[in-house]
Amino acid sequence: MKKSGSELLFLPLGGAGEIGMNLYLYGYGGKWIMVDLGITFRDESNPTVEVVMADPAFISEQVENLEAIFLTHGHEDHLGAIPYLWDRFDCPVYATPFTAAFLRRKLLDDGVEYGRVKVREVIPGGKSIKAGPFSVDYIHLTHSIPEPNALVIKTPLGTILHTGDYKFDPTPLIEDVADEAALKAVGDAGVLAMVGDSTNVFNPDCSGSEAECRQGLTEVIGKYDRRIAVTCFASNIARLESIAKAAAANGRRTALVGRSLWRMNDVARECGYLKSVPAFLTEEEGAHLPVGKVVFICTGSQGEPNAALARIAYDNHPHVAFGRGDVVIFSSRVIPGNEKAIIKVENQLARLGVDAVTAAHHLVHVSGHPGRKEVERMYSLIRPRIAVPIHGESMHLLEHAHIAEMCGVPEVVVNENGGLVRLAPGPAEIVDRIPTGRLAKDGERLVRLDSQLMRDRKRTVYQGAAMVTVVLDDKDRIDGPPLVSAPGILDDRDDRALLEVISEEVAEAIMRLKPKQRREDEEVREAARVAVRRALFAQVHRKPVVAAHLIRIE
Amino acid sequence: MKKSGSELLFLPLGGAGEIGMNLYLYGYGGKWIMVDLGITFRDESNPTVEVVMADPAFISEQVENLEAIFLTHGHEDHLGAIPYLWDRFDCPVYATPFTAAFLRRKLLDDGVEYGRVKVREVIPGGKSIKAGPFSVDYIHLTHSIPEPNALVIKTPLGTILHTGDYKFDPTPLIEDVADEAALKAVGDAGVLAMVGDSTNVFNPDCSGSEAECRQGLTEVIGKYDRRIAVTCFASNIARLESIAKAAAANGRRTALVGRSLWRMNDVARECGYLKSVPAFLTEEEGAHLPVGKVVFICTGSQGEPNAALARIAYDNHPHVAFGRGDVVIFSSRVIPGNEKAIIKVENQLARLGVDAVTAAHHLVHVSGHPGRKEVERMYSLIRPRIAVPIHGESMHLLEHAHIAEMCGVPEVVVNENGGLVRLAPGPAEIVDRIPTGRLAKDGERLVRLDSQLMRDRKRTVYQGAAMVTVVLDDKDRIDGPPLVSAPGILDDRDDRALLEVISEEVAEAIMRLKPKQRREDEEVREAARVAVRRALFAQVHRKPVVAAHLIRIE
Repeated sequence: MKKSGSELLFLPLGGAGEIGMNLYLYGYGGKWIMVDLGITFRDESNPTVEVVMADPAFISEQVENLEAIFLTHGHEDHLGAIPYLWDRFDCPVYATPFTAAFLRRKLLDDGVEYGRVKVREVIPGGKSIKAGPFSVDYIHLTHSIPEPNALVIKTPLGTILHTGDYKFDPTPLIEDVADEAALKAVGDAGVLAMVGDSTNVFNPDCSGSEAECRQGLTEVIGKYDRRIAVTCFASNIARLESIAKAAAANGRRTALVGRSLWRMNDVARECGYLKSVPAFLTEEEGAHLPVGKVVFICTGSQGEPNAALARIAYDNHPHVAFGRGDVVIFSSRVIPGNEKAIIKVENQLARLGVDAVTAAHHLVHVSGHPGRKEVERMYSLIRPRIAVPIHGESMHLLEHAHIAEMCGVPEVVVNENGGLVRLAPGPAEIVDRIPTGRLAKDGERLVRLDSQLMRDRKRTVYQGAAMVTVVLDDKDRIDGPPLVSAPGILDDRDDRALLEVISEEVAEAIMRLKPKQRREDEEVREAARVAVRRALFAQVHRKPVVAAHLIRIE
Repeated sequence: MKKSGSELLFLPLGGAGEIGMNLYLYGYGGKWIMVDLGITFRDESNPTVEVVMADPAFISEQVENLEAIFLTHGHEDHLGAIPYLWDRFDCPVYATPFTAAFLRRKLLDDGVEYGRVKVREVIPGGKSIKAGPFSVDYIHLTHSIPEPNALVIKTPLGTILHTGDYKFDPTPLIEDVADEAALKAVGDAGVLAMVGDSTNVFNPDCSGSEAECRQGLTEVIGKYDRRIAVTCFASNIARLESIAKAAAANGRRTALVGRSLWRMNDVARECGYLKSVPAFLTEEEGAHLPVGKVVFICTGSQGEPNAALARIAYDNHPHVAFGRGDVVIFSSRVIPGNEKAIIKVENQLARLGVDAVTAAHHLVHVSGHPGRKEVERMYSLIRPRIAVPIHGESMHLLEHAHIAEMCGVPEVVVNENGGLVRLAPGPAEIVDRIPTGRLAKDGERLVRLDSQLMRDRKRTVYQGAAMVTVVLDDKDRIDGPPLVSAPGILDDRDDRALLEVISEEVAEAIMRLKPKQRREDEEVREAARVAVRRALFAQVHRKPVVAAHLIRIE
């Protein structure tokens, strides 16, 4: 195992070369700190996987060297893996109050006793946190969730500024603007490396402000006199406030529809947010108001089939029914990969006669990630010697690198998951490759995506599964035709003739085995598997996983 | 079965309420004609299905009443089902020369003797085609493939204008502009119904001309001095010519990379297109030229993993290697659902240091479908009494209906697959619902997507498959522990303990059966299946398809 010795090291295990499942490590003197521990929903190559996270094996196998985990903010792709991985670590987890409160709620929902995770609350601008050779300060930024933070990581070999997710919103409305004075002070004191957000580098402009979005929502809501639903990400508390204020400005009250919205509402109010917004109505209460007197805030902006919006669109929501002349406002962006699901919901709404308003039509959403101009501003404040782009796929990292070079950063390191970067001493460079992997939540357990089990799973998804049972007598002779099933490939009834042909081919394959081979169970099973696979490929062009059962009769 | 009697009927079986797999029927006096017979690639809910088409059962069960099939143009979503369904019909198939040549090539590639399909070549403006009570004329339009046509369908109860896919391109370059005089003449003579393309109704403007696109390509190609690849749809012959001319204008020759491009090139040249373009170079020839002297036209604009572009991006193409400073131009649109696949290729290109230019950056693609202004123009030429939007999902059809109303069309019928519309006599209305369905190509056969087999398939995809073998002796007692496999759900080795628990639960379930039940094979199998399913759900939250084999020992 690579020890960090007297070098200052940076190692992304997730989030560099992909968007989501962030997990970053900083090492010095054999000790490490972790920044964020997130998940991603869905694996693009395997439709059975709903939650996936970076495999923390590199650090969980030397857990004694992990001094602390620092959470930048409360989004799932930054802390969502904690309920699954908390018991592999034994160090404090630092977070600001809102993030900590949300984590507490998540752990509770997952049945994990909160006290078992050593969560420590941090206030930006408060005392520095010592963690082995590291000293960490939080700096308040702005994003699409309350309390996003940059981390100032001081080390014996220099200071690192880890941006986390951010934007520079001039009017974030529910909290202070980004603490540019603090950022500039860090820059003035000299920064070795900035490790920064690349998500929106292809936006040539700025991300826009929540105040503009609130104004846009107010205008759109004002245009309609019938039912209005707005769908947004539940964690965007500023947006919830914006929708409520935009509704109030148009004489409407606001109801929440969907569990995750209520959960975030509880956490936000517990932390002192949404104070100027009256308690939200329940969906039943909202449904009893006159149609022009309420705005429903709904989950489901990504077309999730069980969320509130889809249920309204399919007209099977227990309390909320939409129809001709009503409108749904998508106060959200389309996460790549969700296009078809969202289109499906939009079509259903169209069938009901419901209008859809998206950010393409009107300013009803602003992004939480910095456009190019904001990235440049961050570089002008921080002025690092080294830039290390994170939070992005290859193309984002490379574009970010290009921006950093244009900003005059002397060294830029484009590095994806598993690349161990030496930040100091000497010029920054990738010095080693650390094995990486992904864990999928599978029922109650975590399974590596590259395990034999998940390889079989993937094969089952794309090629199907078949089974064969062979009976041999005490002379290793076949006793009755082998039984073959291939559910989803051949129909037990309609394709009986084909299944019988396969059965005969299995029997022949086994009879062709030498007597010695026929005494070996695994030889018999393998011959049966190969025969089934070959026959199915010949007949229906499929190469399924085949399970073989062997019965020997004494 | 509903006969059309003396009513004039319209029935979409595919293409109304979805984009792709077009199949439309017009009926009068018990006789029918079909317009188009297309496929769609991939089924969004089932990753194992690669080709899907509308089930023509309604008409193939009364094939004696089908007078003719009319193909509007050569795109796969308009004729791609013919190689699979030709033997269910016994009527002439009409098409213009390019479409007929492409169909001939397709049938050849599929091993169908061309002569067995009664293809009849049509020239727009030529003699009307009689088909039972119908008389059909072709009118030349413009689109993204040569020879797109509207059909003028004359019937005893009035004239129908079926637009097919179209745009009004003022400079289509490889063929004439749309025959607006003919359209206007049809309009002047009076049109009962226009059945028209809705694909791009959300584009508020016009689709743009091929000449602009050619100019844009010339400019972009001029900006680069290293390797250039352009990816586009192979059937867009005008685009192939545009790329070749843009390359020549910059002192470059042009090579084709990818089989479908060569196939379309052959068909196009056979029909007299591409005359002003020298023969394309092969990929080997192109690869031997200096980097600044060639443009490669590649398949794979949708991120298809085995197409030329993906192989170049993954740096495993046998002849074409791209690297730093080279560029790929996407002269194509993103078909919804392909976003992730395309992004994957773009990331790979970024890793190689290859620039990507898309229609978002520069005018390197124009759509083949009418924007709102072109739809309005069509209505102003045709002036139908009834508008029936087709080619689109619900939201497109509804938007098109809205446009038709704004254009002053007196009657608008929004109708999805299976809705039988009476166009005359009397007001247009949906008078019946005809059962519809989809057929998936599965190996060499076609299977209905709603069959038990495909339901099992889908369950296997999302829930997996498991198998159990039970051995009963001559007293119906369990002889040895049942064998259980669940490939991709539980690992044969690592999860042996869990598999043994399931085996015990199966044994217990069977022992709980009454003696009489245990004598019934299906009762025993069902008990085993239920036990396995329950146990797997309890352990790993999955509900697989379970196959059960029963062995009885005498």
